[in-house]
This record gives sequence, structure tokens and C-alpha cells, in this order.
Amino acid sequence: MTEFELKFKDLMKSKVKLLDHIMNYIVKRKGKQMRPMFVFLSAGVCGGINESTHRGAALIELLHTATLVHDDVVDDANYRRGFFSVNALWKNKIAVLVGDFLLSRGLLLSVDNNDFHLLKIVSNAVKEMSEGELLQIAKARKLDITEEVYYQIIRQKTASLMASCCAVGASSTASTEEIILRMREFGEKVGMAFQIKDDLFDYGDDEIGKPVGIDIKEKKMTLPLIYALSKADWFEKRHIISLIRNKSDNKKAVKEVIDFVKKSGGLNYAKEAMHRYYEEAMVILNQFPESEYKTSLSALVDYTIERKK
Amino acid sequence: MTEFELKFKDLMKSKVKLLDHIMNYIVKRKGKQMRPMFVFLSAGVCGGINESTHRGAALIELLHTATLVHDDVVDDANYRRGFFSVNALWKNKIAVLVGDFLLSRGLLLSVDNNDFHLLKIVSNAVKEMSEGELLQIAKARKLDITEEVYYQIIRQKTASLMASCCAVGASSTASTEEIILRMREFGEKVGMAFQIKDDLFDYGDDEIGKPVGIDIKEKKMTLPLIYALSKADWFEKRHIISLIRNKSDNKKAVKEVIDFVKKSGGLNYAKEAMHRYYEEAMVILNQFPESEYKTSLSALVDYTIERKK
Repeated sequence: MTEFELKFKDLMKSKVKLLDHIMNYIVKRKGKQMRPMFVFLSAGVCGGINESTHRGAALIELLHTATLVHDDVVDDANYRRGFFSVNALWKNKIAVLVGDFLLSRGLLLSVDNNDFHLLKIVSNAVKEMSEGELLQIAKARKLDITEEVYYQIIRQKTASLMASCCAVGASSTASTEEIILRMREFGEKVGMAFQIKDDLFDYGDDEIGKPVGIDIKEKKMTLPLIYALSKADWFEKRHIISLIRNKSDNKKAVKEVIDFVKKSGGLNYAKEAMHRYYEEAMVILNQFPESEYKTSLSALVDYTIERKK
Repeated sequence: MTEFELKFKDLMKSKVKLLDHIMNYIVKRKGKQMRPMFVFLSAGVCGGINESTHRGAALIELLHTATLVHDDVVDDANYRRGFFSVNALWKNKIAVLVGDFLLSRGLLLSVDNNDFHLLKIVSNAVKEMSEGELLQIAKARKLDITEEVYYQIIRQKTASLMASCCAVGASSTASTEEIILRMREFGEKVGMAFQIKDDLFDYGDDEIGKPVGIDIKEKKMTLPLIYALSKADWFEKRHIISLIRNKSDNKKAVKEVIDFVKKSGGLNYAKEAMHRYYEEAMVILNQFPESEYKTSLSALVDYTIERKK
């Protein structure tokens, strides 16, 4: 990972000073780099890490960083991971351009090295992610989302990137199409579990003190709420929907929605769904031969979805 | 072009209804599709139009459309070509996602058809364009831009895409690297002339009644102004810079800057530079054998930079 970080820093360099300044800033506030780790460990499980794996991990991280920078515009998030977002500091216009620049760096890295198999996987992820986010925005207006649509949204906006990490890792080794597909499926299931866990956080289901009720405020309907609504009678349903539609800025109303979800067993239902995805992911991983990589990948999955049984 | 438009419309389809709705809207307000025409005619000049040319033209137009949509965020433009921008209608967040979606469609089209030579050209254009725009923003803050930096900015932000159009056209035929490079150079020079012409419009140098003084308002230093400042004495220079820095919202101040530029011969100087690029482009084009394509390409260049001698 140290080698990766040095290379990644180098990739983000630009002749334009303002851009260089922003890049340094982005590198400093970088997260856990979970996605490159999935790439490396997936490659390890499928036969070993090589130069192409390194480039694949960089491509994924550049794409992910570009998405985060664009998300700062998208979410109007002024605060991300305790730093002010690039967006808040340099405004929307720069955030869009920096995101585009990062994406192009990733593309060029792949094109220059003829990593076309990686490019294919990643282009598809860009399409899926933007389409998924747009679907979520479209549905947030209508509040009429079904479980099926919820799964489609999180599959596209979150799980597709995690699936791509694992597919890129496998694809960077000389794996067969079938192996690559299996690793993609593994990553997708991990991504689904990860997003459901993240959606559970919004109901205060953790000990890390993340802010609660943000999704409700933004009218994002997630699994716990969708389930609870499906179990409610007509009057209750109408009441809750009206709270979300008209009073989602009101703390008391948000609290009422959260209590309604808890009372209806929405949290347990979502946890079960999450565990199901987790177990399915593990079944796939267990088909691969034992190795240190496999043990680490399994531990990374546990860490990622922070399972506290 | 009719065949191209049908294919292009098809490419913009999505399963997400909101997205489909926006795409229809974008297709309706589409411009002159000058860039695909450059791709087709360049291919024609280099040997003939084929399937790969069609995909190249679509890739370029998708990229260009993505850039326009992102520009709506970037420029805070609420009004583009007489329609309300996607940005104003659906807000920043959607504009960013739609741009990303369009870009990914273009990438996938190329990847799926193994058009890697086209992808290389276009990835580079994305990098150049975002870097050029960021350079312009960085320089707009300092107002200390030289002619050299001006040329670098317009080469990156505008000419690189036109250069890519012609390179993509040539590359879609079985042309040699040398021919592709020559066509790229031709396109770059056309793009430079095109941007200088566009910058001249801001000083009211046309009969089409485009709004005047917008660049000055946004503190964008273009060639006519840069030249005029270089000829001014210390006191005048300080006065004009102070007008731009502090009073660019004031109509009278903007008028004063425009008059200063006209008086100093800034418009003529920029026109000469534009003609130089035009002539250089034509010298390159004339090295190619005569054909209907060549005649049309030459006419398209004349139309593009609207030369009124």
C-alpha cells in the first residue's frame, strides 16, 4: 500500500499550480483506501499481484476520488470526513473540473498501458454509478420506492464499484472469464451488504456516533423504512409519508419516522438482508483456494461491513 | 448526418426515466454538431468514412455534450442557446451526474468496439480541456496573464477538442501516424482561430448581436485585452486592471475597458493572430489530395470561424 500511495500521488500531479494545490489537499484528506485494497487482495486470491494490478488499483482510486469530488457538488456536502469539501473551498465549478481531470488521468493511465480489459470494467462502473444516483434522485421525489427499486439503486450506485474492484483485481491476473465473473459477483454482494449497513447507520444503529436521519431529511427511502411502510396500515403509511414529504426538516418529525421504523422491525429486517449478502459473498470466496490473500480479503470484508454479531 | 443523428439519439437512451427525459431535452436543444462534421470530413479527406468514423463522431459528440452539461455548472450559466440550461432546470447535482453518464456512454461505445486508438485521443482531450479551464480560472484571479499563457489556455480548453475531432477522423481510416498527426495539427489551428474569433465577439466585433463584455465581467483576460495592456503605460495599465478587478460588474467600467482595447488596436492584433492560424491550417489541408471532402472541410472551416474579410 505504501508503494501504491507513492505512485498515486505522482499520478495526481499537474502543471497547473491551482490543480496541484487541490490534489495535495485531496491526497491529505484521503480515506482508508479500501477500494485499492479490494483490488490487490482480489488479484492475490486469483493468482498474484503484478504491474497491471497496480495500475488497476490506481484507476479505481482515481475514479472513486473523481466521484467523491463530483459528489461534493451532487450532495451539496460542505463537510466530508471532518475537512471542508473541495466544493466548499473552491466552489462547484472547480469541483466539476477537478473530477473530470482525475477521471481523464485514470483513463490515460489505462490507455497508455493497453489495459483495455480494465477500462471496460471501469467505464461500465461510471455508467452504473451515475445512473444509480440519478435513479435515486428521481425516486426521492415520488417517495414510491419498492424493495426491488431500492436494490437496483444500491446495486448501481454502490455495489457496481465494489464489484469492479474485485473484477479489476481478477482481470489483472491471467484469470479466465469465469473467475473474473465470480470475483465480480463476490464484490457486488460485499457492496450490497456495505450499503445496507451504511443505510442502517442513518437510524442510529451503531456506536460510532454518525449523524442520524440525514437520509430521511433528503427523502432517500432506504430498506428499513421501505420495509416498515410495507407493514403499516393505510392510515399510518399516509401519516409517515406526509411527515417525510412535508416535515423532513423538522427534528421531531424525523425522530417520529425513526421510531416508527424501529417499532416495525425495519432495522432487523435490513440487518437480515445484509447478513444474507454477506453470507453469499463468503460462499463465493470460499470456493477459492486457501491463501494469505484470501484470509486478508475475508478480514477486509468483515472490517468493511463492521459486523458486530 | 441524418444517419448519425438517429444513432446518437439511440445512444443517449437510458432505463432511468428522469435521465431519458433529460436526454430528449438535450437532443432537442443541440447545436450545429460542428464537431461530428469535422470528424466525418477529416475521415473523408484521409481515405473515406467507415463504421469506426461513425463511432468516433458519436464519442466526440457525447464528450462535447458532457462538457457542455458540466459547463452549465462551471459557468453558472442559466441560459444557453436560448433554452434554460439543464443546470437551471434540474440543478447542479443532476447536471454533474448526467455529464458523467454521457461520458461513460462514450467510453463504453469505444471499449465495446475495441476503438482504442480513438479512446486514447479522447481521454487526452478530457485531460487537456479540464486542465485548460482550471488554468483559466486560476489566472482570472491574478489578472497577470501573458500572451503565452493565453495561447496555452485556449490550446487546452478549445483547440484540443477540435484537434481530437480531426485526429479521430483520420485515425478511423487506416491512416499512418504521420497523417493523423498532420490532421491533428490542422484541427488545433482551426480551434485556435475559432477561439480567438469567439473572444473577439466579446468586444462586439460582429453583426450577430451576441452579448458584449461577459469575459471582462468574469475577469477572463483574452488576446485583445492582453495586447492592449502590453502597449499601455504604467498609469493606464494600473487604471484598467483596477477597473477589471473592482468594477467589472459596472456597465460603464466595462464600456471603458472595451473602448481602451479598441483604441489600442487590440481587436486588429487579435484578428491578425486569428488569420495567421487560419492560414496555417489551410497550408496543412492543402497538402491533402483534392476531393469533395476537402472542399467541404475547407468550407466548414470558413463557416466555423465566420471570416468576413
